Order: sequence, then structure tokens, then C-alpha cells
Amino acid sequence: MSTTDVIYAYTESEARKPPLEKKAMPPLFDEPTTLQNWHKHVNWIQSILLLGTPLIALYGMLTTELQTKTLYWTIIYYFITGLGITGGYHRLWAHRAYRATEIVRWWFCFAGAGAVEGSIHWWSRGHRAHHRWTDTDKDPYSAHRGFFFSHLGWMLVSRPKNRIGYADVADLKADPIVAFQHKYYPYFALGMGFLFPTLVAGLGWGDFRGGYFYAGVARLCFVHHATFCVNSLAHFLGEDTFDDHHTPRDHWITALVTMGEGYHNFHHEFPQDYRNAIVYYQYDPTKWLIRALSVFGLTYDLKTFPANEVTKGKIQMQEKKLAAVKRRLEYGTPIEDLPVFTWDEFQDLVDNQNKKWVLIEGILYDMENFINEHPGGEKYIRTSLGKDVTSAFNGGVYNHSNGARNLLTRMRVGVLKHGMEVMSRKKDN
Amino acid sequence: MSTTDVIYAYTESEARKPPLEKKAMPPLFDEPTTLQNWHKHVNWIQSILLLGTPLIALYGMLTTELQTKTLYWTIIYYFITGLGITGGYHRLWAHRAYRATEIVRWWFCFAGAGAVEGSIHWWSRGHRAHHRWTDTDKDPYSAHRGFFFSHLGWMLVSRPKNRIGYADVADLKADPIVAFQHKYYPYFALGMGFLFPTLVAGLGWGDFRGGYFYAGVARLCFVHHATFCVNSLAHFLGEDTFDDHHTPRDHWITALVTMGEGYHNFHHEFPQDYRNAIVYYQYDPTKWLIRALSVFGLTYDLKTFPANEVTKGKIQMQEKKLAAVKRRLEYGTPIEDLPVFTWDEFQDLVDNQNKKWVLIEGILYDMENFINEHPGGEKYIRTSLGKDVTSAFNGGVYNHSNGARNLLTRMRVGVLKHGMEVMSRKKDN
Ligand code: HEM
Ligand code: HEM
Ligand SMILES: [Fe+2]
Ligand SMILES: [Fe+2]
Ligand SMILES: [Fe+2]
Ligand SMILES: [Fe+2]
Repeated sequence: MSTTDVIYAYTESEARKPPLEKKAMPPLFDEPTTLQNWHKHVNWIQSILLLGTPLIALYGMLTTELQTKTLYWTIIYYFITGLGITGGYHRLWAHRAYRATEIVRWWFCFAGAGAVEGSIHWWSRGHRAHHRWTDTDKDPYSAHRGFFFSHLGWMLVSRPKNRIGYADVADLKADPIVAFQHKYYPYFALGMGFLFPTLVAGLGWGDFRGGYFYAGVARLCFVHHATFCVNSLAHFLGEDTFDDHHTPRDHWITALVTMGEGYHNFHHEFPQDYRNAIVYYQYDPTKWLIRALSVFGLTYDLKTFPANEVTKGKIQMQEKKLAAVKRRLEYGTPIEDLPVFTWDEFQDLVDNQNKKWVLIEGILYDMENFINEHPGGEKYIRTSLGKDVTSAFNGGVYNHSNGARNLLTRMRVGVLKHGMEVMSRKKDN
Repeated sequence: MSTTDVIYAYTESEARKPPLEKKAMPPLFDEPTTLQNWHKHVNWIQSILLLGTPLIALYGMLTTELQTKTLYWTIIYYFITGLGITGGYHRLWAHRAYRATEIVRWWFCFAGAGAVEGSIHWWSRGHRAHHRWTDTDKDPYSAHRGFFFSHLGWMLVSRPKNRIGYADVADLKADPIVAFQHKYYPYFALGMGFLFPTLVAGLGWGDFRGGYFYAGVARLCFVHHATFCVNSLAHFLGEDTFDDHHTPRDHWITALVTMGEGYHNFHHEFPQDYRNAIVYYQYDPTKWLIRALSVFGLTYDLKTFPANEVTKGKIQMQEKKLAAVKRRLEYGTPIEDLPVFTWDEFQDLVDNQNKKWVLIEGILYDMENFINEHPGGEKYIRTSLGKDVTSAFNGGVYNHSNGARNLLTRMRVGVLKHGMEVMSRKKDN
């Protein structure tokens, strides 16, 4: 455990905070749910939408032939609307991770609406609270309430508005596109969620029914659950690469499902960074889109957190993991806890009490279980018993490996009185 | 850099040794090579064998049709003789990493001879010196003399015997199989290297010529250079997973080439371990063979180094690598090097000299370059200037992430006199 650390003092405020304790959450609702009031605890519109659309999609898929063109359009529209959420709602509006020209903002406003996840305003307000109050009761989709709640449950229930933590949305209120979309949101949702994908397939190649069921409803269910995974899966699966104070995790599977939002540990630690994945081979198409648009000047001011601090977080987590492994290793008795023996006691133990001890640098080591295991051969140890073999061990006979040195500490049995004694001084004692 | 380390005292002998310095090697030969004596510095037999066989193989391959059966036999005999070296010569005899019944020992004695790399006795003697004196001048194939020397060069030259370091070979002298093979080695080499593979193909399916050129000579060249890679490639390519005192490295490419001997950093650190790869998915067919034979009782006493010490080595190397990354990171001025300011000086700097300083836990931080970057918004910082924002930063307004705390240390500019002062005490000063 010899440490190569530079000692560097932190104040309490500067020092890392340990993982947030998972406390029992307060009840979801202010008054208990009863047979009389339960319907008040249900968010009926959201529940019907979220539980109804999969049924409609299923019915449609069982009764409607899937045309190749409609399939392609469904996949394309899946990505358009999905990226509308991740690139627009999430990284642009909720986090201001970059800026975009008006045309791009209108595009994301329409594309995001097609995912039918509420207005930019509503979505971002909740999301900012999620970041500011992560895992607590003030987090609208707190992962400490379990996987299902954070995935879907939170939208099925109707909780008092004041139970969600404060978040500043002054900038969103001032944004005319956001305000316009919020005002006419039902038209946006119906238009972009269902009407538009139906019309494209219908007017394009005469497949109104396929357009509605596949590119409309079924696609919607996939986009829903894909993006919902950012609140559920991304808080449960994977590694805490940069910080373990909260639940967010990094995993490539989540990234694949969520168009790159799967490096969620990074994202919660550095939410204003326009990237979620920082390594080039990690899957983050949302980042690729933002960066590609920036080449044409359509997006700009792409924010990144200083690499120095990103690396620091990673290093600190790695140190923490190493420290955990180290605590499980055995290191042998600390020197200060070892009993002290005089030279004559040492000699007596070896000569008359059959102890297989040797002396190296003032410490006594017991070779009992090692004599026959010694890779250099039994002979060397047998002739070393009762002797100071400091120099033999360190190169006089053989300069032992670091592996041998690690082994050595576990054989400590005592300290020689008056520190390190050498054979030649024996008579002086 | 706050350390989670348990402080644990090591003696010098117990502590890890740093990487061995790469010193200029003494000249290869005792007297300088001249036009008169150069032929004495060449090991003619080995040079002719090692440089001649590839030419013969090339000639044979260009003039001999390769029959399918001969191809299979060549591949099989490649593995038989290769494993004869790795499983027999190397792990059984040179390292005594396990024990084997007589039949297995005879098998390895013949199979290893087919690789034509000298007798077990000669091979193991050199190899033990290689381990005991790794990288030094006493190492017969010291990697500090470069890739080519460690791969092939060392066998082309003729150096005085006493230039190679001492190694104990009493056990080999006492082994009748080793002694027998050593005595009749030329017959073993010719018989198993060339005659036997030729006869198998010739008597088996009438392909004497193919048997000689492919399964004999060409196969020999491949086995040669594959096993030579353990001395060259394995000391140059890959990671120092367990120890960096010497050159050996771990790499799967070397493992593929050398029948599993590519985890050479592990091997040099724990040479008596019958494994080279300790992770199940790493390629080490030599280990698989030894373990498979042990199921039938044909091999036994398979030695492994204690897992505790293996992990310790790995952890220590990882700590070292983290420490190296940390040294490249910026941490901000250490507290003890910061200038001290009184509360009034602090107020004056903010009020009259346009300094953008805030106070957190007794330390002054300069927000100059951060105000516009603050992810929580400029407003919060602007209203915090000249104030003690300890509690606001720690949850009063927002409980900042560990990332924010890491950032904070880099903004240190001073220490407040009399330690931590709070706003309410201002008038008392
Ligand atoms: C006291 C505790 C000792 C321990 C834990 C120990 C451990 C080891 C280990 C693990 C090796 C394998 C190679 C390596 O890892 O470096 C080894 C080799 C060896 N040791 Fe020791 N040893 C001890 C004492 C001694 C002493 C006192 C001597 C000599 C008087 C000695 C002489 C050798 C020799 C000659 C080798 C063989 C090197 C080779 O041929 O590769 N050891 N020892
Ligand atoms: C003095 C140095 C400060 C630094 C280095 C700093 C850094 C940061 C950072 C990196 C974030 C992004 C979220 C996070 O990483 O936790 C953040 C957010 C925030 N900070 Fe600060 N901050 C500082 C001071 C303050 C102060 C004094 C206040 C309040 C008076 C404040 C209020 C906030 C708020 C409200 C957020 C937004 C949280 C959210 O909406 O997600 N910060 N700050
Ligand atoms: Fe999250
Ligand atoms: Fe987010
Ligand atoms: Fe080696
Ligand atoms: Fe070896």
C-alpha cells in the first residue's frame, strides 16, 4: 500500500462527496390512496396514451401488411423523432449544451413533438429538476423509487406539482419557439405524432393505413420506451465511470437503445457537455449529429467540460475501486503490532524450538510454510534459518522480484530488538 | 488526490523496486571483433542451422506440391513440437511448474527435440539464467540488447560461457531422461526434427518429399520463430500488468504466436506458476494441455502463485499508472501556498478593484473566467461575489456535483485571515 500520492489538502467543500444514501422515500402522495380517492392519483390522459398506444400498435401490426417503403419510412421517422428528443429537447433546450440557428430549432421543435413526450417546456422543466435533485423525492423520476417508476410509473400517477424540485426555466419562457410550441402543443402532438407520418406514407405511396399504424403509432411506442430507458436503464445498468454519488451509469447497451444517451454517468456529472460519449468509438449519434451540423454553422458554441476535470473524476473513481480491492487483500501484520525479540531469543527459537525464522532488515520472517514452496529451492532457505539474509535476498545471492517482496510481508512474525543486526555484530550483544 | 490508502509501512526489502535502469551493455565479446578474429565470434553450427533452414524451406515450398494430408500433418506436428517446448522444456523442466508421469516426460522429451532448439539441459540452463538475470548482461538473450539480439542474434554469436549468469541445474543433472536426451542429442534432433516427420508422410501417404520440406524443414522454421518470439516480442510488445521492474510484457498477439507464452509479464513475475494466462478467456493452450493431462493423473502438483500476491502486483501497477496520470493533471494552488487576505481586503478587492471573488469554507475563489461558463447560470455567481457562499454551494441553493468540486480547487486565489468567516460576523471584525 506504499502510496505514490502527492498529499494535497482539500476543504470539505472541495472534497468528493460519498454515494448518496438510498433512503426510504416519502409516500408518493400527500394523502394515502383509498378506494374513494384513487382515481385522483391517476394521470388519466398520460395513462391512456401510454397504455393505449401499444395496444393500438399491436392491433395495427397484426392486421396491416408492412410495405417495404413504409418500413423504411418508419425507421427514418423513428430516428428523426428520437433525435428530436435527444438532440433538441434534451441537449439543446433542457441543458443548453450548445446553440443552434433558428432553422435547426424549428426542426427540433417539430421533430421532437412527433415523439409525443409533452412540450419542450414541460419536458425540460421536469428534466432540469431530475438533474438538480437526482435520486431524491424532488426528482420527478427518481431511480430510488425503482426501475418501473423511473421508466413509466411516474407518468401514470398524478402528484401535486410542488413535490417536484425547483428548477429555473426563465430562458425557456423567453424562447419564442418554446412558447409557441407549448401554446399549441396538442396540435403539434397530433400533427407530428400521427397525422404527418400517415400523410407521408399515404400521399407518398398510397399506404395511409400502414403509415398510421407503423410510422405513427408503433414507431411512437418504440421512441417512447427508447427514450424512457434514459430514466430507467441508464440509472441501473453499467459502470459509474466518473462519479458514484448518484445512480446514473454508463453502458453501451443503453447507448444503442437511446441514440447515445447511454453514457449517463458522464452526462449527470457533466450535464452541460454536448457529448454523452467522449470516446470516439462509443455510440453517440446525437453528438455526431450536433457536431456534423456545426460544420455548416447550423449549430455552434458546443460546450465541453474541461478535460482535466473529466479525467480527474475518472481517476478518482478508479482509485476508489482499487482501494476497495486492496481492502480485501492480506498484507501481513503491521510492523508496529509485531512482538520484539532479542538476537539471543531469535537464535534460541531457531536452534532449540525448531522455528524456521530468518532475519531481513530487522524483521523476522517465518519460513515454516514456505521452505518447500520456495521457487529458488529448499536448500537456500534451510541454510538461511537463524541468519540475517538481507543482502542475500536483495542480490547477494538473488535479487528477488517484486512478487517475492509482496509475499515476504505476509510472513512477518517479529521485530529484532535494537533494529537491524548483522551477523558480524552478534558477539557484541 | 485525497488518498483512501491505508498507510502500511514497508521495509526497503519488502517495498517494490522501481524499473531496472537500461544501462549501456558491456561489449558482447571480451576482445574487440577484428578482421582476424571475427570468425571466432560466430557460432557456426547454430548460424548455419538457423539461417540455412529457412532457405531450404523456401526452396522446398517452391518446388514441392503441398498435399492436403501433408498440410494437416505439418500443422499437427507444429503444435506437437511447439507444445514440446512450451509445456515440456519450458514449464516442466526449466521452471518445475508442475510434475508429470514418466510417459508424459518421455513424450515431451521427444516432442521438444523435434523443435531442434538444443537439449533440455542446454535450453533450461540458459532459460534459468534468463529469469535470474533478466535484462542484464548475464541474461543470455537480454532484451536490453535489442529486439534482434533477443530473437535470433544471441544464437548466431559465440560468447565465452562465463558471461552467462549462474543458474542451478542440479535437478536436471539428476534427471535420467534429461541426461539421456542430452547425451544423444544429435540423434534426437535429426530423428525428431527431420526423419520422423518425413517418414510419417512418406510411409503414411507416400509423400516423402512433402513430409521432409513441409512437416520437417518449413514447420521447423515456424516453430523456431514462434518460440523465439517469447524472448523478443514478449519483451517488447504489450502491458506490464504485474510488474515493471523488467522488460517482459503481456500481449494476446504474442500469446497467439507462442501457444500461450505471451502473458510474459505474469510469467516473469511468477515463473513457477504453471499458467501464463490467468484469465479464462486468454489464449494459453499450453496451460490447457497441462490441466487436461492432470485430469487423467498424467500431470500433477500444478503450482500456482498465491492469488493474493498476484492481485497485489496488479493493483500496485494500476496505482502506479493512475499516479502517472494524476501527475499530469492540474489541481490548483495548494492551500499552504495561497496568500492570506483579511475580510476587509477581500471586500475591497471585490467592491473597488473589480475582482470576481467568492468565499467558500475560508478559501477565496476567483470566478473571473467562470461567471459566463457557470452551468447554473451567470446570475447566481454575480450575486455571490464578495460573499461567503459555503452553504449555498453545498446545498443551500444547490448541492454541487463532484465534478463542480473538482473544478473549484483550480480557482483558488487566497485564504481568508482567521479562517472561515461568515457574513453575519462581518461587523465584529
Ligand atoms: C525469505 C523469504 C524469501 C522469499 C519470500 C523468497 C521468494 C522467492 C521467489 C518468489 C522466487 C521466484 C523468483 C522471484 O519471484 O524472484 C525465489 C527465487 C529464488 N530465491 Fe528466494 N525467497 C526468499 C529467500 C531467499 C533466500 C534467503 C535466498 C538465498 C539465500 C533465496 C534465493 C533464491 C534463489 C537463488 C532463487 C532462484 C532464482 C532463479 O533461479 O530464478 N531466496 N525466491
Ligand atoms: C463557486 C464556484 C462554483 C462552481 C465551480 C460551480 C459549478 C457548477 C457546476 C459545474 C454546475 C453544473 C451541475 C453540477 O455539476 O453540479 C453548477 C450548477 C449550478 N450551480 Fe454552481 N458553481 C459554483 C457556485 C455556485 C453558487 C455560489 C451558486 C448559488 C448561489 C450556484 C448555483 C448553482 C445552481 C443553481 C446550479 C444549477 C443546477 C441545475 O439546475 O442542474 N453555483 N454549478
Ligand atoms: Fe438521468
Ligand atoms: Fe440530462
Ligand atoms: Fe523472458
Ligand atoms: Fe520462463
